[in-house]
Amino acid sequence: MTANDLTSSDPAMAASAEATDRPRRRGREERQRAHAPTAAFEQPRLRMQPVPAVSEDELEAIHEASLIILEEIGIDFLHEGAKQLVKAAGADVDPNSNRVRFDRGLVTSMIGLAPRSFTLHARNPARSLKIGGDHVAFCAVASAPNAADRAGGRRPGNMVDYESLIRLGHSLDQVHLWGGYPVEPADIHASIRHLDALFAMLTLSDKPIHAYSLGTERNLDGLEMTRIARGISKEQLELEPSVFTIINSSSPLRLDGPMLEGIIRMATANQVVVLTPFTLAGAMAPVTIAGAVAQQNAEALAGLVVAQTVRPGSPFVYGGFTSNVDMKSGAPAFGTPEYMKSALLGGQLARRYGLPYRSSNACAANTVDAQAAYESVFSLWGAIMGGVNLLMHGAGWMEGGLHASFEKMVLDADLLGMVAEFLKPVKVDPEELALEAIREVGPGGHFFGCAHTQSRYRTAFFSPMISDWRNYETWREAGSPTAYDKAEALYREKLAAYTPPPIDPAVREELEAFVARRKAEGGAPTDY
Amino acid sequence: MTANDLTSSDPAMAASAEATDRPRRRGREERQRAHAPTAAFEQPRLRMQPVPAVSEDELEAIHEASLIILEEIGIDFLHEGAKQLVKAAGADVDPNSNRVRFDRGLVTSMIGLAPRSFTLHARNPARSLKIGGDHVAFCAVASAPNAADRAGGRRPGNMVDYESLIRLGHSLDQVHLWGGYPVEPADIHASIRHLDALFAMLTLSDKPIHAYSLGTERNLDGLEMTRIARGISKEQLELEPSVFTIINSSSPLRLDGPMLEGIIRMATANQVVVLTPFTLAGAMAPVTIAGAVAQQNAEALAGLVVAQTVRPGSPFVYGGFTSNVDMKSGAPAFGTPEYMKSALLGGQLARRYGLPYRSSNACAANTVDAQAAYESVFSLWGAIMGGVNLLMHGAGWMEGGLHASFEKMVLDADLLGMVAEFLKPVKVDPEELALEAIREVGPGGHFFGCAHTQSRYRTAFFSPMISDWRNYETWREAGSPTAYDKAEALYREKLAAYTPPPIDPAVREELEAFVARRKAEGGAPTDY
Repeated sequence: MTANDLTSSDPAMAASAEATDRPRRRGREERQRAHAPTAAFEQPRLRMQPVPAVSEDELEAIHEASLIILEEIGIDFLHEGAKQLVKAAGADVDPNSNRVRFDRGLVTSMIGLAPRSFTLHARNPARSLKIGGDHVAFCAVASAPNAADRAGGRRPGNMVDYESLIRLGHSLDQVHLWGGYPVEPADIHASIRHLDALFAMLTLSDKPIHAYSLGTERNLDGLEMTRIARGISKEQLELEPSVFTIINSSSPLRLDGPMLEGIIRMATANQVVVLTPFTLAGAMAPVTIAGAVAQQNAEALAGLVVAQTVRPGSPFVYGGFTSNVDMKSGAPAFGTPEYMKSALLGGQLARRYGLPYRSSNACAANTVDAQAAYESVFSLWGAIMGGVNLLMHGAGWMEGGLHASFEKMVLDADLLGMVAEFLKPVKVDPEELALEAIREVGPGGHFFGCAHTQSRYRTAFFSPMISDWRNYETWREAGSPTAYDKAEALYREKLAAYTPPPIDPAVREELEAFVARRKAEGGAPTDY
Repeated sequence: MTANDLTSSDPAMAASAEATDRPRRRGREERQRAHAPTAAFEQPRLRMQPVPAVSEDELEAIHEASLIILEEIGIDFLHEGAKQLVKAAGADVDPNSNRVRFDRGLVTSMIGLAPRSFTLHARNPARSLKIGGDHVAFCAVASAPNAADRAGGRRPGNMVDYESLIRLGHSLDQVHLWGGYPVEPADIHASIRHLDALFAMLTLSDKPIHAYSLGTERNLDGLEMTRIARGISKEQLELEPSVFTIINSSSPLRLDGPMLEGIIRMATANQVVVLTPFTLAGAMAPVTIAGAVAQQNAEALAGLVVAQTVRPGSPFVYGGFTSNVDMKSGAPAFGTPEYMKSALLGGQLARRYGLPYRSSNACAANTVDAQAAYESVFSLWGAIMGGVNLLMHGAGWMEGGLHASFEKMVLDADLLGMVAEFLKPVKVDPEELALEAIREVGPGGHFFGCAHTQSRYRTAFFSPMISDWRNYETWREAGSPTAYDKAEALYREKLAAYTPPPIDPAVREELEAFVARRKAEGGAPTDY
C-alpha cells in the first residue's frame, strides 16, 4: 500500500465499494445493535455559551502575534516533503536551514477550509461520534509510560495492563473513544507494538480509535487496520473519518519529521489531525499566558497550513495544552489557574478559526487523593467552559501523564458523568415548574410522598458511582472508605464484568492476517 | 437598647457622631495599617461574564411561577409583627392562620430598592469588603455542629475548637470574612454562647462578621458588639453595614419567628440580610430543578418584601442553596450536577433582581479525600460561573455541613486561592505577548534562561500551599504524602504561627464590659 492508494477519491469507485459493502455491513449492524451502548454513552452537548478569557480585541492581538511569529520568526520543519509542499503553496522555505516562514495571506487562506464538525466513525456505528459544533467527546487516558493500581503499585507499561485498561475503558460508558494507548505496552518490541496494540484496541473495544504518528508505516498500518475493522473499502474510509492522530509540535516552533509525516498521511486519507502544541509556559514557551498561547497558536496554525494544503477540507482539530511549570523546580503543573485560563483562551481561538477544540483532563498528582480530584475538576472546568469538543485524557491520567491509574479511570469516569449531567439543559415547563405539587404540599409540608416526586424520583438525579453520601456513623461502621477505596473496588468489579463487544469473525480474521503479515515483514523498522 | 434606637437616621446626629469619632478612628487605623492584610487578601473580581443556566424567556417563566406561588399559595409567617408589617404594605394576611399572600405589584415594587453593591465594614478598615457588583468575598465554614481534625477525630462543637478555627481562618488570607460560627461552641450555655462566641470572633480576628438571627437579644447584642468593636456610634453603624445575618426559610414556604425577627432587626439597623432558602429538591422542594428554584425564589422574594418594607434600600443579598437529596436514602447531596445548575440559575435570578448573590462551597464527603475535593470544586464552579458575590462555607465545610474540618479549611483556602488567581484577567499587551522573547529563543530553544522569563519567574504563576508537584520518585522517598497529610501539617503550622490582630485596649475593655453585663442580665433567655 502506498500513500497514493489512500488519496484516490474517484466517486464511482466509492459508490461501487459502498454497493459491495452494503449487505455485509447491514448484517454487522444488526448484530451490533444487540450490544448497543446505554443512554449514558450519549454525547454531551454544550448548550451553554463558552466563557471567553479575553476581549475580541485582545483575541485579535493574539491572532496577530501568531501571524507575526509565522511570518517573521518562522517554524522549523524537519521533513523535506512537508517543506516542498508548503513551498509550493507559497511559504518561504530557507534553502540553508529547516526554517519555514508563512505569509499571513497564506495562513488566513487556510482558515475556514476544515469542517466545523464531522463524524468520527467507530467500527460499531452506534459508537460513532460527532466531533465539533456543540458536541463533546471524552477520551480515555493516553500515552502513559507507566500503569498503576493501588495493590500492584506503579510499574512500567506492559501489554497485560494495556489490555486491562482497554477492557476497563470499554466498559465505562463515560469514555467515548481512545485517544491513544492508555499505557505504552513497552514489553512489545517497538517495531511491532503498534500492530498488537491496535489489534487489541480494535477487538477488545468497538469505540473510535487513535493511531500514533511515529513514522510512515505506523500511520499506514493504523489506517489499514481501521479500514479492516470497519469492514469498508479504502474509498469509503476516505469518505468517513474513522481514526485520528495527535500531532504535538516540538515547542518552541518546531514540527518534527514523524509529526509532519503524520499530518500528510492522515490528511491525505481524509482522517483526523489533532494539532496540539505542548507549550509549557516558562519552559518551552514564554512565561506569560498571552505569550505561551500566541506561540501555541502559531504552531497550531502552521499545522493547519500543512493539513489543508495536503487536502483542503480534511478534518482538523485545534488543540490547546498550555500549562505552566513550577518555577521552583521546573516540574510541569496541571489543573492550575494558568492552565484553566489557557484552556478558555484556546477554545476562544478555536472558535475564531471555526475549528473543533481539543483540551484535556490533566493533573499532576502522584496518588488518587484530593489533589488529583481538584486538579482534574479545575482542568474540566477550563475545558468545558472553554467549549471543548474533544477531551483528551478524560479518564485515568495521573502524574502529569506519567502513569495511567485504574482507580483514577473509574473516578474520572464518574466526574465525566457529572459533567455530562451538568451540561443537560435545565428544563423549564409547567411540569418541571411543579406549581401543582407546590400547591399540594403547601407551606410546612414535604415533597417525599407527593405524586410529582413519586413519578420522578427514580431518575430525577444523577446517581454517582463513587460518592459516598451515607451519614457519618454508617460510613464509619462501614470502615470509613475513601473515594480511593471505592474506586479500587469499582474498577475490579467493572473488569470482572467485562464482556468483549461482538466482532464479525471474518473481520477479526482479516485483522489477524494483516497483523501476521506485517509482523513477518518486520513491522515498522527501528534501529534497536 | 430598643429597635427604635437603631432606626434613628438623623443626618445631623450622624455627622456629629462622625466628627466625635474621627480622632479616635484615625489612631486606630494607623495602628492597624501595621497589621495590614497581604495582597492575597485582595477581593477577586468577576471580570468574566456569568454563565446563564436558562434562556431569558425561561428565566421569566421561573420569575412568573414564583409570583404565582406568592400570590396564590402564599407563605406562612410565624411572627405577628412581620404579618402586621406586610399587611400594612398591602399583603393579604389570613386572619385565621399564618398565611400571607403577596400581590405581584407589591413584590415587584420591592425589586430595585436594595443596593446592587455595598461595603461590609470590618473593625480593621483594611479588611472591609465590597459585597455585590463584580466583587467576590469568601467566608469560612459556618454553623457546623461538630469539629474534626485527623488526629483528634470528629467531636461535638466546643469553645476550644471554635477559637482554634477562628485563629486558623484569621490566618488564611483567602478567607475574607466570617459567615457564622465555624463550629457551634456547644459547651457554652445557649443563653450566653453568642456573647462569648462573638467576643472571640471580634478579638481573635479583625475580619467582617455575621450574627445569628436566633431571637431579639442575639440580634441586638450582635449589633451592639459590632458597634463597640468598630469604635463607632449607633448612627455611624447605621450608615455603614458592618454585620450580616443569614436568614433561612423553613422550606417549603415558611419563615419562622426568629428569622422574621432577624430580618426586621437587621434591616431596621441597615445591616445586611442574606436570605437563603435551603430548598433540597425532592424533600423540602419539588424534585425538579425548575420547581425547586421557583420555590427558592418565592421564599427569597418574600424575605425581600419584609426587609425592604422595614427599610427601603437596606442591604439585601439573594441566597441560593438548592441541591438534591439521594433519592435512595433521602440524604442531602452537594456539589452535584443538579447543585451546579441550581447555582447558575440562582445567580441568574439575583442579577434579574439587581441583588448581590450568595452561594456556597459545599460537599457531602465524610473525609478529606477525592470526593471532598471534587464536590467542592464542582460547587465552586457553579458558584463562580453563576456570578457569586458572597461565597458561604468557603473553607472547612464537610459532611453536608455537619462538621468543620481543620485540614479541609486549609485545603479549601488553597482552592479559593486558585479560583482567585483564575479570575485575574489574562493580560494581553506587547510585554505579555512576548514576541521579543520568542524571537530571541527561536525554534528549538528553551525559555528558562531568557530575560523575559528571568524577570518574571518568581511571581509568574500561582504557588499553591498543598499541591505536590514533585516527581514520583522524590515524592515516594518523602513518604508518599497525600493532600490530606500536607493539609494536616499546614494547618498545624498556621495555628502555631497565629498572632492576634491588634485591638484598641479601650475597645477590648468595652467589649468585655458589655459581655459581662449581658451575662449578668442572663444573656438571651432560654427555656432550658
